[in-house]
Amino acid sequence: MSKVKTNNRTRILASCRALMNKEGAQAIGTTRLCEVLEISPGNLYYHFKNKEEIVRALFAELETDLRVAFGEEPPSSLTPKVFADFYIKTLDVAHENRFFFSGLLHLIRQDDVLATDYLSLQDWALDALAAVAEQAAKEGHLKIPNSKKRYRSIAINTWLIWSNWVRYLEISKQGDAISRADMVLGIEQIFDVLSGYLEPGYESAVRRHLKVVR
Amino acid sequence: MSKVKTNNRTRILASCRALMNKEGAQAIGTTRLCEVLEISPGNLYYHFKNKEEIVRALFAELETDLRVAFGEEPPSSLTPKVFADFYIKTLDVAHENRFFFSGLLHLIRQDDVLATDYLSLQDWALDALAAVAEQAAKEGHLKIPNSKKRYRSIAINTWLIWSNWVRYLEISKQGDAISRADMVLGIEQIFDVLSGYLEPGYESAVRRHLKVVR
Repeated sequence: MSKVKTNNRTRILASCRALMNKEGAQAIGTTRLCEVLEISPGNLYYHFKNKEEIVRALFAELETDLRVAFGEEPPSSLTPKVFADFYIKTLDVAHENRFFFSGLLHLIRQDDVLATDYLSLQDWALDALAAVAEQAAKEGHLKIPNSKKRYRSIAINTWLIWSNWVRYLEISKQGDAISRADMVLGIEQIFDVLSGYLEPGYESAVRRHLKVVR
Repeated sequence: MSKVKTNNRTRILASCRALMNKEGAQAIGTTRLCEVLEISPGNLYYHFKNKEEIVRALFAELETDLRVAFGEEPPSSLTPKVFADFYIKTLDVAHENRFFFSGLLHLIRQDDVLATDYLSLQDWALDALAAVAEQAAKEGHLKIPNSKKRYRSIAINTWLIWSNWVRYLEISKQGDAISRADMVLGIEQIFDVLSGYLEPGYESAVRRHLKVVR
């Protein structure tokens, strides 16, 4: 693929993500996208057959970014900084792809392939989140009774708050811009899922790192 | 208003809620609604000017039901049964109005009046949830450090899981029906927000009541 064509593909994806983040996935079609990008429909269709294909490509990027933010392999030690970074980086991915989580049910109702891919990612994330809680317990940072079942519950609640925090902000702020402080509050809310179980010294150390990004 | 007309208004609302719960708020318009109800557009427009008005009326019913489920006044004592009933009843309201929470951002982006009304309800619910946690602490059922700020955090996480649980099921079950067991799992997830703080005997007693509905 020539450089110009590669760049057009990248431009289409970036522009579509930005527009959908601003106005919602339902509101954006290929016609509007061509107008904003000042390209012909033929140019767009050279890269993507339809809107569905663009959304799938955006989801593939989201998935890659999320796996990187989670860390390809479990960390050798959950230092407070490693733990805090994990929350900060993953919530950034949710923010950069907020159109996806905000319009999720609508998007996957319209595309079975996307639905299946999304559920695979969700399953993987739930396992990874449970593994992080379990590792934190093994390293003595938290204490959980009836732990096996509870790790799963922690993973689900963490995922629910993580995947809905930015949507909650969009709903609550009625069009006002989302600030860095809003995102830090979200990181703290997600971390609060663990709060009742954490060893106090470790909790304070993680919270210090969470606040550095304000 | 004559009895027939009152009944038609009720039928329109019930039918619209059921259709939107099944297919999403975006997918249902007044034309479709008239077809399903076998009434003329004129008949529908006698009761509601447009889809927006129907959604506002459905929201008003949701709001009434949620306030009733929360309890008009704080309970004199948070017995395990009172506490469990509070979770069970409120999640039922979310389930019966799942179209609303699933399509929330889309709905309020299209209607500023609805957006304002929704935010008032959300603010009221967050205050009520914080008050319940505070009352539970006063009655000795849970212990929370740095409590003022933490009550607010608990309220937000409870609200996020409550308002997104049914959407999470709809996404995860890919069209399969939501069962009573799915709802009980949701009630337990919401209750788990408090788990790390609860007095163990009280926690077990509430969980026994939560499981009775299975």
